[in-house]
Amino acid sequence: MTQPDLPTVRLLPKSKPQALRRGYPWVYANELVVDRRTRNLAAGTVARLEDNERKLLGLVGVTPSSKIICRMLDRNPEASIDKAWLAAKLTRALELRTRLFPAPYYRLVHAEADGLPGVIIDRFGDTAVIQPNAAWAELLLPELTEALAEVAGVKNILKNAGGRGRQLEGLDDQDAVLLGQAPEAPLPVEMNGATYMADLTGGQKTGLFYDQRPNHGFAARLASGQKMLDVFSHVGGFALAALAGGATSALSVDGSASALALAEEGAKRMGAAERFATRQGDAFDTLEALGTEGERFGLVVCDPPAFAPAKPALEAGLRAYEKVARLSAPLVEEGGYLVLCSCSHAADLSSFTGACLRGIGRAGRRAQLLHTGFAGPDHPLLPQLAESGYLKALVFRL
Amino acid sequence: MTQPDLPTVRLLPKSKPQALRRGYPWVYANELVVDRRTRNLAAGTVARLEDNERKLLGLVGVTPSSKIICRMLDRNPEASIDKAWLAAKLTRALELRTRLFPAPYYRLVHAEADGLPGVIIDRFGDTAVIQPNAAWAELLLPELTEALAEVAGVKNILKNAGGRGRQLEGLDDQDAVLLGQAPEAPLPVEMNGATYMADLTGGQKTGLFYDQRPNHGFAARLASGQKMLDVFSHVGGFALAALAGGATSALSVDGSASALALAEEGAKRMGAAERFATRQGDAFDTLEALGTEGERFGLVVCDPPAFAPAKPALEAGLRAYEKVARLSAPLVEEGGYLVLCSCSHAADLSSFTGACLRGIGRAGRRAQLLHTGFAGPDHPLLPQLAESGYLKALVFRL
Repeated sequence: MTQPDLPTVRLLPKSKPQALRRGYPWVYANELVVDRRTRNLAAGTVARLEDNERKLLGLVGVTPSSKIICRMLDRNPEASIDKAWLAAKLTRALELRTRLFPAPYYRLVHAEADGLPGVIIDRFGDTAVIQPNAAWAELLLPELTEALAEVAGVKNILKNAGGRGRQLEGLDDQDAVLLGQAPEAPLPVEMNGATYMADLTGGQKTGLFYDQRPNHGFAARLASGQKMLDVFSHVGGFALAALAGGATSALSVDGSASALALAEEGAKRMGAAERFATRQGDAFDTLEALGTEGERFGLVVCDPPAFAPAKPALEAGLRAYEKVARLSAPLVEEGGYLVLCSCSHAADLSSFTGACLRGIGRAGRRAQLLHTGFAGPDHPLLPQLAESGYLKALVFRL
Repeated sequence: MTQPDLPTVRLLPKSKPQALRRGYPWVYANELVVDRRTRNLAAGTVARLEDNERKLLGLVGVTPSSKIICRMLDRNPEASIDKAWLAAKLTRALELRTRLFPAPYYRLVHAEADGLPGVIIDRFGDTAVIQPNAAWAELLLPELTEALAEVAGVKNILKNAGGRGRQLEGLDDQDAVLLGQAPEAPLPVEMNGATYMADLTGGQKTGLFYDQRPNHGFAARLASGQKMLDVFSHVGGFALAALAGGATSALSVDGSASALALAEEGAKRMGAAERFATRQGDAFDTLEALGTEGERFGLVVCDPPAFAPAKPALEAGLRAYEKVARLSAPLVEEGGYLVLCSCSHAADLSSFTGACLRGIGRAGRRAQLLHTGFAGPDHPLLPQLAESGYLKALVFRL
């Protein structure tokens, strides 16, 4: 079937189509012929992409105003980017998650790596949250919603327009209910034997991150009989897993009172409220205060926000990771465990590990490295896109 | 307590003690003053190590004939390297493994990272196998045996003198029974729901490797309902885990008939013999033959021996990994899973990943990367010793 109605865009002579042929999913604005016709395409238009010799490379979503001007949708230029096409991608993504997880709580679609550029879909049982962070997906949102309801059987589909990528694509920040209704209260989510509360629509909209699941699970194996400290705890990711793993106590530190309240609700539903405490405040201040108080824990976890989200912040970010390590290591008992995490795209594994070891060394401690973990397998990587491997968790014994 | 009877060895002026102070565990022969007195020390002598300004750095095991002339035993120069010292190291190592594993089957001591340089101890329930791959440990083997029996409560302790490191330390290759008796038949070992047969003393002495346990476990999560192929299968590491995970069939390919016989015995004990088949032969030939036969599998695993054990073999090794990927990718069904492993010290994660992707690409396939796994946490790393991170497992979806 030919689609004569699709516009065509073309690579500049200097740009190299080999990377695209090998699976690289993006074309930057400085690689494309941007004539008036291309500039006038509506954001999100599906177009044919040609190389400079007019050989078809595939179908792309075009956002003329964006630095990432094209996102590869299908390397078959005869494909139809429609509901059936979306359903096929979702079916494939669902097959993996159904294998991996005993219950329907996972990231169902992780953007480029799942063949849907810029699209994130998190599933919470009957409810799914779509983040359409690319214009092509925003245009196809009705079809995506229908396909998702049919393939995954979810009853409620929400749109989360808070993604930072949307602005770059010229998209608004208006959340919406696309199907069914928004949950009236935070949803309980079971992972690693713990109960987490996911606030998808409330005033704080803390959400819930699935990426740390295997690292939560690993830390829980070290928790039995331990006093545990979880810094940058958010809704209690590591703390509640540690309680499920048999920690005698867990203390969650976070700047957000609403996140800590959700962690408390989770602990209560687990019947672990008596072993759980929270401390609201700045993480660095609290680490220093706990050191001064002479507190010691068998297991300490620090899972800070991205200190080095992009290259310009790398040096300062690595210093911040070093500081986290330096302030947290003294809180670990001799022979105890320290989990240090980074979700910074710019800090690669080796730089992050170096920063952690410097911090541990400056605290006068020494470490074995027991485990290196990444984001869970519901967050697959497109190997051509090095940027995608953001999450690292290092498990040390001191 | 001072130990006036210990000899002293000294670093050369040019050598830098900072690395040792930060936890680097080795002194190379060209960093030490090797006078006649030092040269005449018996291999394995415990000595005090001084820097060039005669400041004590700690206690080392000295092997004058070895390139690694000193191994740091304790940075406290007043320590006594005796049975109690060994017992303390074993106790600490045991604490970690007891936390991590439900049954006493694990690597109990992983050399430098567990504070016992050159010493490997694998535990199989009541039986432990020591590999004393450094001369200091060979001299202290009676004390180590006693300490191990007391701390871990094992009844049988075997000495495996097959380690390649022993030759460099001037040690013989004579195995021995150090305590109790050698098991008369291969021992069953339960991991990831599968039963493996560990032949610790038989004619083939295939042994059993614990390092892939978490990667076996991950692959098993992808196995349900799949036809599975395990190339370089050894005693069935991935194949039996896949059968435990619900694979409809598993085919083990290996060059060793005795290893495959143990895999078959494991499958039989699991009640999975009907779903299990073996094929003895060269792995590359068999991969090509399966391709020619048009065989397809939902899950393919290749866990070859170290193609790049050291730097001179790196390029040839990476080509071999690429070839494994190129020959195995065509055997994977569309949407199926491919696990590619490397146990090469010289091939780092990035080089190995690159070789795999080139091979997959040359086979005309594209891949998502779902998971990157390393050796299990009973194989901790000393972060100062980059060489220690040898094992990588990449899980792709094609």
